Amino acid sequence: MSSVFWHTLFGASTGFDLSQISELLNIAKNKGLKAIPTGSELSKIQASRLSTDTKMSKDQIELGKMLYFDPRLSGNKELSCNSCHNLSLGATSQVRKENNPALLNAPTLYNVVFNNIMHYNGDITDTRSNNPGKKDTTLSALSKAILASFTSKDELNNTTKGMMKSLDDIKNYKYLFNRAYGSDVKVTPALVADTIASFVATLTTPSRFDDFLHGNLKALSQDELEGLVLFIKQGCISCHTGVNLGGTMQPFGVLKPYKFASLGGFKGDAHGNVKVPTLRNITLSEPYFHNGGYKELHKAIDEMARIQIGINLSSRETKLIADFLSSLDGYIKPVRLPLLPSSYHDIDEKSSIDDLR
Amino acid sequence: MSSVFWHTLFGASTGFDLSQISELLNIAKNKGLKAIPTGSELSKIQASRLSTDTKMSKDQIELGKMLYFDPRLSGNKELSCNSCHNLSLGATSQVRKENNPALLNAPTLYNVVFNNIMHYNGDITDTRSNNPGKKDTTLSALSKAILASFTSKDELNNTTKGMMKSLDDIKNYKYLFNRAYGSDVKVTPALVADTIASFVATLTTPSRFDDFLHGNLKALSQDELEGLVLFIKQGCISCHTGVNLGGTMQPFGVLKPYKFASLGGFKGDAHGNVKVPTLRNITLSEPYFHNGGYKELHKAIDEMARIQIGINLSSRETKLIADFLSSLDGYIKPVRLPLLPSSYHDIDEKSSIDDLR
Repeated sequence: MSSVFWHTLFGASTGFDLSQISELLNIAKNKGLKAIPTGSELSKIQASRLSTDTKMSKDQIELGKMLYFDPRLSGNKELSCNSCHNLSLGATSQVRKENNPALLNAPTLYNVVFNNIMHYNGDITDTRSNNPGKKDTTLSALSKAILASFTSKDELNNTTKGMMKSLDDIKNYKYLFNRAYGSDVKVTPALVADTIASFVATLTTPSRFDDFLHGNLKALSQDELEGLVLFIKQGCISCHTGVNLGGTMQPFGVLKPYKFASLGGFKGDAHGNVKVPTLRNITLSEPYFHNGGYKELHKAIDEMARIQIGINLSSRETKLIADFLSSLDGYIKPVRLPLLPSSYHDIDEKSSIDDLR
Repeated sequence: MSSVFWHTLFGASTGFDLSQISELLNIAKNKGLKAIPTGSELSKIQASRLSTDTKMSKDQIELGKMLYFDPRLSGNKELSCNSCHNLSLGATSQVRKENNPALLNAPTLYNVVFNNIMHYNGDITDTRSNNPGKKDTTLSALSKAILASFTSKDELNNTTKGMMKSLDDIKNYKYLFNRAYGSDVKVTPALVADTIASFVATLTTPSRFDDFLHGNLKALSQDELEGLVLFIKQGCISCHTGVNLGGTMQPFGVLKPYKFASLGGFKGDAHGNVKVPTLRNITLSEPYFHNGGYKELHKAIDEMARIQIGINLSSRETKLIADFLSSLDGYIKPVRLPLLPSSYHDIDEKSSIDDLR
């Protein structure tokens, strides 16, 4: 990266010209920023998040969506995955956790398919063998995290047995599993988690920034391009990189202490590292930090610059970085609210889901 | 109604013929059963549930849907109307309230537009003047009940002020109200309630039984017809009548005491009458009774026959009545999950809702 280049960019009062934008694009890619993949590349990643016994069929995904929205599988039968990872609200809950510090701010599930490490402390990773020829039914990190959320007392607060009992009580789920996996399928907790994972894996949100990474030099505004320059130049990109501009374990509170470090269940891994949250759709996932301590994005940007890279941003710099982050607001595919199967009807063979009600 | 007719029906081992079905249809209508109206008749009822300042425009209904799904308007910012009146689960919560007897089993909101009395104790009714020429901005029973649910400690547990503050904090709601009602609109708690009511008023679920009432003599199976005969003959129809097969205030525990009468917040009006729940979509709204004390529909039918009309149904009779009730399972219109406005973007004029994110 040439210092002449940075100088040119900031000196350019008439804005970036196409050759500068093209150079910036190359730098961004060389620094590790990646577009949300499409087509077979996306399918390959999605498949890698499921066990080898499952597939991303339409019936499986639709069933996964039902399970995602079904509160009857939780301990008190009132909470579903969607209660905290609310697809109407950026797949997060937007609840400040200051009054309940044991809980952690629910991370967005949009684009979580691109993560291979789960939870702030990174306690869930993919431990499967990487041998394509070998059948390995161990759960992926994503499926393990989903299963863990059913039994965590701070989340769905059920037991694996309770979850399976509830499923079993709702007669038509049996039919839906058969439809998705064949009549000889054995419904196990792992299969339930994998089925939900197949739906969650579809929650990808390509944005204007992805258009830019794919080579559309006019996808970003001049302010957003300036914000990207700052994002790279100031070093935000060291941790916020890859497809999700986050997702790896990194040191936290590098230059100044993290003011909420002692609040709630916040802790890092054995090396003190914590998982870097994605910046995709960040404007939708307020409040910020593990306890939701900051409501405004600009304050979160300032605080991160201060404690992680030791600089005080000017208000213009903060605004430009926020502008760049807004270009990560993705296209959210419409979701049709599922009609959940009832336990009244005892139907074995039907062609339409609506008939199962 | 001719006793010869009933005799003929039950003696007919070969099933009902068309002339018998036609006679049964006439009896059902004469006894007060009504189909869900369509077209201008439906529009007229929907409009009567809103104050004269509101209208059922597409923008108003879409905004009402957002408010229905937005947990940020509740006291703890975690509950929305949809949490308890879950549109994935028959617009109810399917939670047994035995562990929390202060709460009442959430009634379904499907077809609630046909009710003019709200709550078990009927404490909310429509008190508006019935003068079409006179402007009356008093709230309808439906809007009053919606507003009450925001401030009830057992429901959304907010204050009117807190609800308005939350709305005000989410910048783009202002734009959405302007879009729905014009730029000079004053957003009041009453308008919020009316806007939600306009969405709730669309939640109607016409069923095969409505086809029957509209004159399709082949809409019901032989067992369902037999169930309808019993439903009329045994007297269930005395209380479960009208469009919603319920909705009026009636005595309860007429011939035998109601076993859950002392549990939780259950009480009647000054005359000891309680509101009759609708039987529409009853197979989706388990568990039954005010505290959700009965899980199975057939047990609820048996209990109602015992305490209200003093008879013990045979298992075949119970099954036939349940079959008839299943014919009230309606067509549920697909709902696209709303994307709720964020408080980050400050946008005044936009043409697409998706741009508001």
